[in-house]
Amino acid sequence: MEQTELRKGERIDDLQRNGRAIIQNPSRFCFGIDAVLLSGFARVKKGERLIDLGSGNGILPILLEAKNSGKSYTGLEILPENVEMAARSARLNGTDNISFVEGDMCRASEIFGKNSCEVVVSNPPYMKAGGGEANPADSLAVARHEIRMTLSDLVRETAALLTGNGRCYYVHRPQRLADIICLMREYRVEPKRLRLVYPYADREPVLVLIEGRKNGNPELRIERPLILYEAPGVYTQEMRENYGF
Amino acid sequence: MEQTELRKGERIDDLQRNGRAIIQNPSRFCFGIDAVLLSGFARVKKGERLIDLGSGNGILPILLEAKNSGKSYTGLEILPENVEMAARSARLNGTDNISFVEGDMCRASEIFGKNSCEVVVSNPPYMKAGGGEANPADSLAVARHEIRMTLSDLVRETAALLTGNGRCYYVHRPQRLADIICLMREYRVEPKRLRLVYPYADREPVLVLIEGRKNGNPELRIERPLILYEAPGVYTQEMRENYGF
Repeated sequence: MEQTELRKGERIDDLQRNGRAIIQNPSRFCFGIDAVLLSGFARVKKGERLIDLGSGNGILPILLEAKNSGKSYTGLEILPENVEMAARSARLNGTDNISFVEGDMCRASEIFGKNSCEVVVSNPPYMKAGGGEANPADSLAVARHEIRMTLSDLVRETAALLTGNGRCYYVHRPQRLADIICLMREYRVEPKRLRLVYPYADREPVLVLIEGRKNGNPELRIERPLILYEAPGVYTQEMRENYGF
Repeated sequence: MEQTELRKGERIDDLQRNGRAIIQNPSRFCFGIDAVLLSGFARVKKGERLIDLGSGNGILPILLEAKNSGKSYTGLEILPENVEMAARSARLNGTDNISFVEGDMCRASEIFGKNSCEVVVSNPPYMKAGGGEANPADSLAVARHEIRMTLSDLVRETAALLTGNGRCYYVHRPQRLADIICLMREYRVEPKRLRLVYPYADREPVLVLIEGRKNGNPELRIERPLILYEAPGVYTQEMRENYGF
């Protein structure tokens, strides 16, 4: 691991995966279990190029690079302080195929060009924008609310970025599943794989993980439930084995 | 229970619910666990009128009448031998609010009139029609394949039949979930409630149960998983308590 300098309020977190680490600033936004689960759900094959729309502190490119053998992992992020911090995390890990670009996700296909990658991932804001009360430069608000990008913008840009039968992977809230599926169909990114994340086997799900394929044929495969806990504070075997919790 | 006469090949099955029974002919089609699960998922309030699209042997109106306090339960079915047998089952149970009508589901809203019921249920054929090899008068083929009615026909007629904010309940295969959700949106029947049926807690789901509301606002609630078995041949507590298995 290379030397790095930390700014005020930042810390380095070990990612428990191939020695990878990430710089985070708890006062802005720290990655959650949703990013970790998405990194286990997404698949990046050898030689593929990946773009993460709304990369925040850079957790998805860093985790996905550690787990897969893709050619490049690029995060697009609108807030300059996030881009700068994520770039330091990439340098910290000494990898040369992770990069971060500052820019507006609503213009992603202009920035990178159409048909420019095989895989798109995103852990987008989950909540609809309120009434404009939130500050569009506020990291936490931008990460949580659809202030700078709606779900429709995300799917439109995903479809434009992907090559012929490229794939996308999103994590979102169950309440939005109908919106996600209908928008994917609208932009010809067929929903192909779905997994629901339940906190316990007898509780409502808290997250959905979904894979789409550009120009894919209609047929959705729903996977076995992903159950987080077997008892309060005790992760299930799958969570311990596959995610290092 | 009233006297009834059985035709050749028929038998009477006890439904384990308020003394209700049904006549079935195993050489044609017997109801399965999917109809029983849908009858537990659907809700019919006092005074409401229900129409079952593709009622087959009549299992859904009979079970739903036993469990709810709706005003009327009407099954629409295209095969005359099914209608006749279902009508005998209704008489057998001595109820006066269950009836069966012979007719084409693709014309349901012409037959009953638009905005004519508060609840629509359906356990439709799960498989797309093949290449016309199936006999359109064959009970088993009609029950399993989209020979006489496609999913699009079903949702279109559901939307036309329902009153202002009426509800529908379907059971289907997980592979078709994206089709179902997009068609519901197309016909302004918003997906509001979804439950996945898993054979075991660590297996892929085999069925989806979905509720839609005409002109509803977008927001889907996904319920806790419905798990059938805790061990081979041993139903879970929920299945034993709620469904009498």
